[in-house]
Amino acid sequence: MAVGEFVLPDVRPVAGVRLGVSVAGIKQTVRPDCVLIALNPGTRVAGVFTQNAFCAAPVTLCRQYIGDKSRYLLINSGNANACTGDAGMHAARLTMAAVAAEGDVAPEAVLPFSTGVIGNLLPAEKIVNQVPSLFADLAEDGWQRAARAIMTTDTRPKLASKTLTIAERMVTITGMSKGAGMIKPNMATMLGFIATDAVVSQSLLEDISRIAANQSFNRITIDGDTSTNDSCILMATAAAGHPEIVSRDCEEYGLLLDAVCEIYQSLAQQIVRDGEGATKFVTVEVKGGATNNESLTVAYAIAHSPLIKTALFASDPNWGRIVAAIGYADVPELDVSKVKVWLDEVQIVADGGCAAGYTEEAGQAVFNQAEFAIRVDLGRGECTETIWTSDLSHEYVTINAEYRT
Amino acid sequence: MAVGEFVLPDVRPVAGVRLGVSVAGIKQTVRPDCVLIALNPGTRVAGVFTQNAFCAAPVTLCRQYIGDKSRYLLINSGNANACTGDAGMHAARLTMAAVAAEGDVAPEAVLPFSTGVIGNLLPAEKIVNQVPSLFADLAEDGWQRAARAIMTTDTRPKLASKTLTIAERMVTITGMSKGAGMIKPNMATMLGFIATDAVVSQSLLEDISRIAANQSFNRITIDGDTSTNDSCILMATAAAGHPEIVSRDCEEYGLLLDAVCEIYQSLAQQIVRDGEGATKFVTVEVKGGATNNESLTVAYAIAHSPLIKTALFASDPNWGRIVAAIGYADVPELDVSKVKVWLDEVQIVADGGCAAGYTEEAGQAVFNQAEFAIRVDLGRGECTETIWTSDLSHEYVTINAEYRT
Repeated sequence: MAVGEFVLPDVRPVAGVRLGVSVAGIKQTVRPDCVLIALNPGTRVAGVFTQNAFCAAPVTLCRQYIGDKSRYLLINSGNANACTGDAGMHAARLTMAAVAAEGDVAPEAVLPFSTGVIGNLLPAEKIVNQVPSLFADLAEDGWQRAARAIMTTDTRPKLASKTLTIAERMVTITGMSKGAGMIKPNMATMLGFIATDAVVSQSLLEDISRIAANQSFNRITIDGDTSTNDSCILMATAAAGHPEIVSRDCEEYGLLLDAVCEIYQSLAQQIVRDGEGATKFVTVEVKGGATNNESLTVAYAIAHSPLIKTALFASDPNWGRIVAAIGYADVPELDVSKVKVWLDEVQIVADGGCAAGYTEEAGQAVFNQAEFAIRVDLGRGECTETIWTSDLSHEYVTINAEYRT
Repeated sequence: MAVGEFVLPDVRPVAGVRLGVSVAGIKQTVRPDCVLIALNPGTRVAGVFTQNAFCAAPVTLCRQYIGDKSRYLLINSGNANACTGDAGMHAARLTMAAVAAEGDVAPEAVLPFSTGVIGNLLPAEKIVNQVPSLFADLAEDGWQRAARAIMTTDTRPKLASKTLTIAERMVTITGMSKGAGMIKPNMATMLGFIATDAVVSQSLLEDISRIAANQSFNRITIDGDTSTNDSCILMATAAAGHPEIVSRDCEEYGLLLDAVCEIYQSLAQQIVRDGEGATKFVTVEVKGGATNNESLTVAYAIAHSPLIKTALFASDPNWGRIVAAIGYADVPELDVSKVKVWLDEVQIVADGGCAAGYTEEAGQAVFNQAEFAIRVDLGRGECTETIWTSDLSHEYVTINAEYRT
């Protein structure tokens, strides 16, 4: 189950980035579950990681080693290698060492990533055994196979790609991501790998990585849970050959940032559309906050309410649940008479109650759509925040009740 | 669906309290949906109410008038009279006036309560028409009928009763409550009405009401939503005739407080056992917090996680989801190597990973029970908090997807 029709997008390869996949047999079904990404020398790498205190072993290692020395990314699905203590760290290091030996680099040049069940020891040997196959499979056109291999409960691979011109050179940005449950800002059982051939300094690449994640992966929520493994990685190979972007003030920085944000948002929204059991894709926009934080607080109160999420699933415009969520969102001294709410363009709340002229039919027409917006004006200031979420369906319960069986 | 066998408890009437029910036809099915509680002169009344900014009209009126002049409580189910603006206030006042006229008291001596769908105008006329029937039905033994009439999605009436001796007089405490969704501290679509014939000052009654609610109704959660209508009312008729309790330092105050807390906890736990679609009743105990607030934060992170709640439903001891929730609960500088987790007495987490000796079979045996505890030690201090919650089942989705249809 997922929202909208799925068409596998064409993606452009990124010069300097090769991807290979293999079947290590970590999952119960036999399908590719390991990915290797190889980066040309000169590539710079930046990333943002989960804020969860129980972060997984690979996250700890990535945080330590990520940078302009990173040459390989090794990703497995089926096992998160989280809450596995010292044994988990050892297992991750074993896989890093195997890639390092085959690729003739230092182990610290290999970044490990894992997603799947928490608390089971990573079967390092199975991955190590696949390292030769992973190297043999490396190719610039490996994005689609890689995007499938990192899937867990995802029903669709998530890919996005675009080109832009910087200093008369064509620059490509291509990325893949996986969800699909435990998605909440800061961040999610979410992996994202985005590469560009742009030429940009390490420090600006880190800025772009952080800003783009905040406008995308940190603005989506499916079930409010934050996983132990979230990682979103931005790689820049410098193969496009334009002059290096070294200042925030130049036009090229803005062009690159906007384009990267667009790819990040596409990949993040694809995760929501393919949220576990999702039948709706809902934009929650809260304007009129006195601070960005209070707009965000209200947006998440709406997006996390199980009562609203089940009403979305049922296509039931039960707007009382929306105002109840706004009311308990802990905005100090909220004047409810100033709060306005719309479903797309249909106003449902004004003056502390139902808006004059609202009809159940009009609300129903909006809720019958697979994609729509819940828009709130708090009437307190100028700050706007937008997040994206999905509904709570029987399928969500089924998927998560039966995940390990 | 609900946890455990249901046996309608015997409840003792409280001298000075009479209850009547009637069918106003607010709901689609014809069953009692209105309750009148009549209090003898001399009764003192205290209460705690929802913190939701969009509080319902009756909550606004109750907050204004509750005290030692309150003589009647008028309760309807089927319509929450929330987010109904000035028209809702007017409708509530119409019903208060009708009871006041029939009972020959001031309108301010009547406290209104509503629970049900948010955003629809209260059909005041239907309630006003039933006022004579409600008065005619008043009886000291009306508790069981009243407990049924205030139900919405509840599958069982919730009642509790006990006696104690104060200064050689027998004192009775009897109460009823209703849930069942939108249950979260501070507070819930929760109504509670608890009466005693104890003799206690207005100020101490208010203290007891607040303390007891904090140890009970404010420690349960079903879906994390906080409703617009929650009210929990404590009435003391003084009919037991012992010397008035006027000091926190006397033994009698402690006896009464403990007994009232016991009734409140019973009524609150009955709400969780009958939570929408509940198949499990789970105690979440978090000790070792540096502050009570951080213990409570961790407890709610566990109790609100849809991933944990679906694992509870599936009887799947997926403890990785528990540590993930602890990890994202926003406890500053949490040292995960000191965190310990038990399922009842079975230790599952130690040293940042799976506890030595833990077996899936032992965890499964705990999760197979309808009632068990998830116990956490944060290893940071001495503060303990305990809350009670239920699971997230298909039935929950069904109930809330179809609530209005």
